[in-house]
Amino acid sequence: MTDQLVVAVDCSTTAAKAVVVTADGRVVAAASRPLQTDQPHTSWHEQDATQWWTATRDAVAAAVASLDHPDRVAAVCLTHQRESFTCLGPDDVPLRPAILWLDARAHAEIAEHGSARVHELSGKPGDTTPAIYKLAWLARHEPEVLRNASRVGDVQAYLSLRLTGRWATSPASADTLGLLDLPRRAWSAELLDIAGVRADQLPELVPAGEPLGTLLPEAARALGLSGPVPLVSGIGDGQAAGLALGATAPGVAYLNLGTSMVLGVSSGAYRWDPAFRTLAGIGPHDYTLETVLNAAAYVATWCREQFATEADLEQQAAALPPGADGLLTLPYWNAAQTPYWDPLARGAVIGWHGRHTPAHLYRSILEGVAFELRLHLERLEAATGSDVEQVRAVGGGARSPLWVRIVSDVTQRPVRVCAAGEASAAGAAALAWSHLTGTSPQQAAAAAAGPLLDGHDVHPDPSTAARYDALHAVHQRMYPQLRDVYAALADARSVPWG
Amino acid sequence: MTDQLVVAVDCSTTAAKAVVVTADGRVVAAASRPLQTDQPHTSWHEQDATQWWTATRDAVAAAVASLDHPDRVAAVCLTHQRESFTCLGPDDVPLRPAILWLDARAHAEIAEHGSARVHELSGKPGDTTPAIYKLAWLARHEPEVLRNASRVGDVQAYLSLRLTGRWATSPASADTLGLLDLPRRAWSAELLDIAGVRADQLPELVPAGEPLGTLLPEAARALGLSGPVPLVSGIGDGQAAGLALGATAPGVAYLNLGTSMVLGVSSGAYRWDPAFRTLAGIGPHDYTLETVLNAAAYVATWCREQFATEADLEQQAAALPPGADGLLTLPYWNAAQTPYWDPLARGAVIGWHGRHTPAHLYRSILEGVAFELRLHLERLEAATGSDVEQVRAVGGGARSPLWVRIVSDVTQRPVRVCAAGEASAAGAAALAWSHLTGTSPQQAAAAAAGPLLDGHDVHPDPSTAARYDALHAVHQRMYPQLRDVYAALADARSVPWG
Repeated sequence: MTDQLVVAVDCSTTAAKAVVVTADGRVVAAASRPLQTDQPHTSWHEQDATQWWTATRDAVAAAVASLDHPDRVAAVCLTHQRESFTCLGPDDVPLRPAILWLDARAHAEIAEHGSARVHELSGKPGDTTPAIYKLAWLARHEPEVLRNASRVGDVQAYLSLRLTGRWATSPASADTLGLLDLPRRAWSAELLDIAGVRADQLPELVPAGEPLGTLLPEAARALGLSGPVPLVSGIGDGQAAGLALGATAPGVAYLNLGTSMVLGVSSGAYRWDPAFRTLAGIGPHDYTLETVLNAAAYVATWCREQFATEADLEQQAAALPPGADGLLTLPYWNAAQTPYWDPLARGAVIGWHGRHTPAHLYRSILEGVAFELRLHLERLEAATGSDVEQVRAVGGGARSPLWVRIVSDVTQRPVRVCAAGEASAAGAAALAWSHLTGTSPQQAAAAAAGPLLDGHDVHPDPSTAARYDALHAVHQRMYPQLRDVYAALADARSVPWG
Repeated sequence: MTDQLVVAVDCSTTAAKAVVVTADGRVVAAASRPLQTDQPHTSWHEQDATQWWTATRDAVAAAVASLDHPDRVAAVCLTHQRESFTCLGPDDVPLRPAILWLDARAHAEIAEHGSARVHELSGKPGDTTPAIYKLAWLARHEPEVLRNASRVGDVQAYLSLRLTGRWATSPASADTLGLLDLPRRAWSAELLDIAGVRADQLPELVPAGEPLGTLLPEAARALGLSGPVPLVSGIGDGQAAGLALGATAPGVAYLNLGTSMVLGVSSGAYRWDPAFRTLAGIGPHDYTLETVLNAAAYVATWCREQFATEADLEQQAAALPPGADGLLTLPYWNAAQTPYWDPLARGAVIGWHGRHTPAHLYRSILEGVAFELRLHLERLEAATGSDVEQVRAVGGGARSPLWVRIVSDVTQRPVRVCAAGEASAAGAAALAWSHLTGTSPQQAAAAAAGPLLDGHDVHPDPSTAARYDALHAVHQRMYPQLRDVYAALADARSVPWG
């Protein structure tokens, strides 16, 4: 055993979270610093990229400051919000605010460029999140930014520049920009042309787990670290969570049942399909196949906030039968992603009658997300030809016993509810340990997985299977029937009045 | 002028309401007595028919008792809940509880017998309300009742028997039993065969406005009346409200925006169409074409009760733009009637996003009912070839300024909000006056219409027309898209579990 420690940072959308971790996964120190998001227009979401650095610096410094022996820190590794990007001028100062993954300004560019060809090359279906469409938006609306930028890159590239002086990131961090020829792990001239970006602006690509560089002396000082500490090449937060939760093995899926729902499995071959987005995995031939529903716990929270001031919806909903007495919810409050990728889709609640209460709506929302999850699972299994035998769940929704029960019953799969913890940061820590110990990232993750996987298993109740099978079949018919209604509604809403 | 008075009674579903009325429509006395409905099963709705008599007797007696000169009462006329029927034994005692219009037990018989042929003959699309299907249910499940009944008839027939000793009613009271060959105004052997009823069990048919008979001395005494007072043949409550509100003239529609929504226009020719149900009007060649939505104010009330404990939804909803920020509601909480007649349809709310509040849902419900009303109006106009130029509105919903504004804007028609009052009873009073004065019912109604029509007009805001036109077009697409989903959902709900 070693007395070394690693610092893992998750520079997420809302905060930079730093943890100091042992090789067996114990968190010995932690701190976080918030990040501010600005919405200059309803659908725009921006951050000041220099805050990515200051929040990361301050979170790490605070965590390290609580250590008795900061010199035990032997490596740093990053994970981060994906798709978000910054454009730096010749002095490495941002030319404009960073544009985030959830920014929806580029609908025209998605409609124009979001082709099957782009999906095949980049692994990303045409949708709000990939940076390529927002870069095309910049090329159209703020051409001087892209013209003048000496660097265009992702969160890790920017932090690497600040920490080591090297403009570099990993394929598994950069690929959500949507500019990589993903099977070749190289920038695609065809995609760069759509984005209006030059290859010389983009960061170097360093495989995950290899060093990006050594901390600059002034950066190390700012973090409270000493000696030549390597910054190990990290990966995006989804892949990092999958690594930490062991979803790099066949038959295991990781589920983040949070504000959004993300379900991921690994694949040893490149595949692309409307059912998922394909991400670079850790090794050169590893891929992560991820499904996504933008509004999951988001809808449940909305329901509690809007429709129940005092009632304990969770308890009342638990007393209702499977199917919420005939109420079905399509949880597309933030449009449809897997497998329809329809920006015009919205929520739908069908089956209302007079005996329905707010608790029926709440249960129907939880069930609606679970039906979506089942659809995602089945599409992933069909695409990979490999069954998912266990779902490992993290996120706020996984702390609802009712919701986990519903997920297990609707999917008829066992669900491991993992301990509350920073799964993505744990994945980054595993990469750092992999570098320090010379083991594979998967081995390092397995060695550290104890605390994270220390949860409990929920097994499906077979008596609900037939009813949920039947309701799931109805749920699956809702979107195809409503697709044209959504498009017509979006048109009708644009008709002026008054 | 005359110092005579008439007594009009509306023996509705919830109460017998008696009013004493002058020829110019002033109500000089009123009283009501409640009726009790029993629900021995969820979808069954029954009353004791003898309560129709005792409640009517006691309401009239109470109203008459407040008169200084009861001997001024020169005629009595009835209106009443439709479709409801009683079966009497040889001693004129009910053999079982009366089965009401809203009783939904006969779904199998509707599926079996609800044909286009029955619609063509009776004017009634296959649906829950007509008695014919419930009589067929009795023939199957309680055959001894129909075998042993000496009389089978509607509310007016029963009250005529108690008041005058004569087993008689009008075509415009009896036709909602669904047993009349409506164009011929005669019992149909073909329909009686479906119902399992014999012609000798049914009441005589006496045209509306002609005397059914003279009050029996003991009946007159029980009511507090003296002298030979005629009982004038009345009509069903919908047609009576239409008569009182002047919807017997072209271009005028009556709207009851209550728990249910009923819209009616008159027609001088027999027509039948899925868009409406056809009822006998007053004269031998008069018809009333009625559309219906079973859940209108019902849904608004449900929303207020379930989703808003303190908020003033009405005020908040009024501040929202037309279209409730993209939320559309199909208000089929109690299945679909005009023009789809689908017992499996349920409510649907489509377009949800995170900025929606309970007030959005509330406004969307009011708008959804208004879109249904526009559909009803347009289908009636298409079928009759005659434009509706004014809608005259009564009912609880008409007391919501917001809802009337929405109805006027969505339909782009002027809406006359009529004074709160007993429109159906006013129609019965007009028939009584018609008999006493030798004028037509329409003339008598016009002479008495002042107090009832003394409301205010709401004119459409043309600036909302284009937006509501577009949203209405989307609203009309919802049901056709969801029809199969509703059927599948009903099937799925029947799958057992646990």
